[in-house]
Amino acid sequence: MNASPAFEISKQPARPLAAQQPCRIALLGFGTVGRAVATILQGSSFPQLRLEFIYNRRVDRKRVAWVSPQVHWTDDIEQVLASDADVLLELAGGIEPAYSWAKRALLLGKSVVTANKKLIAAHGPELLELARRQGCRLEFGAAVAGGVPVLCGVSPGLSGDRLLQLCGILNGTCNYILHAMESRGVTLQAALKEAQQRGYAEAEPSDDVDGLDARAKLAILVRTGFHLQVDPEQIAAQSVLDVRPADFRYARELGCTIRQVARAELKSGTLLAEVAAALVSVNSPLGAARNNQNVLVTTGKYGGETVFAGAGAGGAPTAVAVVSDLLAVAESRPVASRGPALVAVPVSNDFRCRHYVRVVPAEKTDAIASLRRALTAGGVGLRGLLHHPDPHDRRPSLALAVEECSTQLVEKALRQAHDAGLLAEPPLRMSIVPSS
Amino acid sequence: MNASPAFEISKQPARPLAAQQPCRIALLGFGTVGRAVATILQGSSFPQLRLEFIYNRRVDRKRVAWVSPQVHWTDDIEQVLASDADVLLELAGGIEPAYSWAKRALLLGKSVVTANKKLIAAHGPELLELARRQGCRLEFGAAVAGGVPVLCGVSPGLSGDRLLQLCGILNGTCNYILHAMESRGVTLQAALKEAQQRGYAEAEPSDDVDGLDARAKLAILVRTGFHLQVDPEQIAAQSVLDVRPADFRYARELGCTIRQVARAELKSGTLLAEVAAALVSVNSPLGAARNNQNVLVTTGKYGGETVFAGAGAGGAPTAVAVVSDLLAVAESRPVASRGPALVAVPVSNDFRCRHYVRVVPAEKTDAIASLRRALTAGGVGLRGLLHHPDPHDRRPSLALAVEECSTQLVEKALRQAHDAGLLAEPPLRMSIVPSS
Repeated sequence: MNASPAFEISKQPARPLAAQQPCRIALLGFGTVGRAVATILQGSSFPQLRLEFIYNRRVDRKRVAWVSPQVHWTDDIEQVLASDADVLLELAGGIEPAYSWAKRALLLGKSVVTANKKLIAAHGPELLELARRQGCRLEFGAAVAGGVPVLCGVSPGLSGDRLLQLCGILNGTCNYILHAMESRGVTLQAALKEAQQRGYAEAEPSDDVDGLDARAKLAILVRTGFHLQVDPEQIAAQSVLDVRPADFRYARELGCTIRQVARAELKSGTLLAEVAAALVSVNSPLGAARNNQNVLVTTGKYGGETVFAGAGAGGAPTAVAVVSDLLAVAESRPVASRGPALVAVPVSNDFRCRHYVRVVPAEKTDAIASLRRALTAGGVGLRGLLHHPDPHDRRPSLALAVEECSTQLVEKALRQAHDAGLLAEPPLRMSIVPSS
Repeated sequence: MNASPAFEISKQPARPLAAQQPCRIALLGFGTVGRAVATILQGSSFPQLRLEFIYNRRVDRKRVAWVSPQVHWTDDIEQVLASDADVLLELAGGIEPAYSWAKRALLLGKSVVTANKKLIAAHGPELLELARRQGCRLEFGAAVAGGVPVLCGVSPGLSGDRLLQLCGILNGTCNYILHAMESRGVTLQAALKEAQQRGYAEAEPSDDVDGLDARAKLAILVRTGFHLQVDPEQIAAQSVLDVRPADFRYARELGCTIRQVARAELKSGTLLAEVAAALVSVNSPLGAARNNQNVLVTTGKYGGETVFAGAGAGGAPTAVAVVSDLLAVAESRPVASRGPALVAVPVSNDFRCRHYVRVVPAEKTDAIASLRRALTAGGVGLRGLLHHPDPHDRRPSLALAVEECSTQLVEKALRQAHDAGLLAEPPLRMSIVPSS
């Protein structure tokens, strides 16, 4: 399904840095990642990188003594843009003003390195094209999976394959929460609170738990690996907030655990893509992801499955990805080609797979039997029925393992059963992600 | 321990290919990988790559009908070198004549792509320097771990970290054999024969089982990840041929299985490096490697552990790595820098770790107690004694788990015990690789 790529060699090579002259860096945003990058650059490992500016709003709150006195601290972005810095390192996050800064920097002939998945998911292709026209670089290796080099692993690493599937754990916060539920049996709310206390989750965690963070990363991966144009908003995202301790006990009976899974697959010209809680085999690379780890499993037509796993979150691992990008820019390898053109396709989340369904039957005679009849009538094949009363549940729940079928089919049958009064509360459906 | 890198920007950019003109490829060696590369290039995915020549000795034996009639088949290397091919794709293997061909191609201004670990382990730095001077590319992503993009994962992917350890399974044949012994209890000889029948192992398998193949790959990884100059011959390699079914039963009692492990670590200015059969936790990424998979686990000062895993052998996965390299050359990103200079260091295999020792005590009274005394007197702390009689063994063996200590200490104590007549046959020592 790779589009026929139209390669073109740029006539405008990136400005070569004079030999011996270090690459001058302006760091925007002195938060967790910014501090970790400054720490690495303070060491002696990378003399070809020189930190010249640290920009932050109300910069005086941020100033620290361990940064070299040669670094200029400023809260004036105009000073940074007017300076002779070679690279704008954008670690402020969010779309604005990051987008305006990146655009202005590129127009001024400065390269841009960023860890900002929102910015790249929203404006990546446009900024890449601008960078190419300006003979500059735009690098964003830290935007997906933090310290795990998945973007360069996919391209150039696997560019010679035809990728068929991407399946991964791209949000460290959700993995921390779900792994805590799995390993210690705590509720989601307790695990979330713990993640917040440890600084793994924001006070406002909806970007993480609702899947918005992971779907921005999945959109970037789909562009890189499939050469398809996709916006994050086209990818269905389902919150993990509905997962309960009982779901882990049911999952275990199926040899599975539960993870927030981001996946994409090309099927008959449609891009299947979603971010949702899903069952994964405990023996799979996704099931093995602990704490705030990230994992990506790619499936290629020729190379089969390739796994990338490691520290997907945290200041120091993300800083590694940022510094690797800075080195690539300092070595001034020009972006010689626009790469394959991106192609637009329909996007759906109607994956065909086995499913897990947790229901609370209505309190009436024969509700379970009626439910089974209703599902079977809707074309949904049942594999098994699990029953594990949960002390946290007010009403007893049941779990159903569903034969491989279309996601929409299961959801429709469940909606009809709910509308017919067979369920005491909305059901929870999760995909059972196949593992090889 | 990274050396202070001396970066220098090349004044000689790679010759840009004219826009729209595909990159012309001369393929040398039409074996398993060569056929798989030709298959991928026959498809429509990569119009920027055009196969122009297929060279092989006695080429008429090799000719197949499915290759486009525009491809020239030849057994005359001079014709290939004199042609207008942009890239020499060397898939013949071995050091000569591959080395002469690569050198001549670079001197003629042609880029070189190769999957040849022996060639790169022996002559990589020299050929890279020649390529840089000629403004050409030398790419060898397929030389380590086949289809798993570990070289580009390490650099540029993790170039911003300071790598402390590399630990991997780099030989698919040995992994096939050891995984068959683990999962089906067969002897090493039976597993090797099976691997040969399935085409996974050569008729003459010593490069694989003696660790020579894996240590060539480890030498390339050490240069790429640690920026250290190391020759394969400096790395200790121990055969896996001594591993018996009983060792897997003992290993299981320790929560471990057995793999051929290639590892390297910097310790006080010395490079610890070896390739040997070793015990690894069944729950670790190395323990999870099945059949002919390859795995690399890197440990970085900032990024912690990163795992790369996938199809390390076989025609199609290796061809993916080759085609990815061809695309990189076709996109004509010049190698702008010579990268950090390589530094020479002492090399040793005296790792400090826990050890597994399998012995057959001599047939005399009190041999076991004497052995324990001898080892303890030699400074070797014993953790436990395992006994699992093996029907394949003529004499009953014992396994000892040894506390963390220097490898040389254990080997010296065992040698002394053997010299003192306490052992009926030479002992087998394997490291127990720590897992986080």
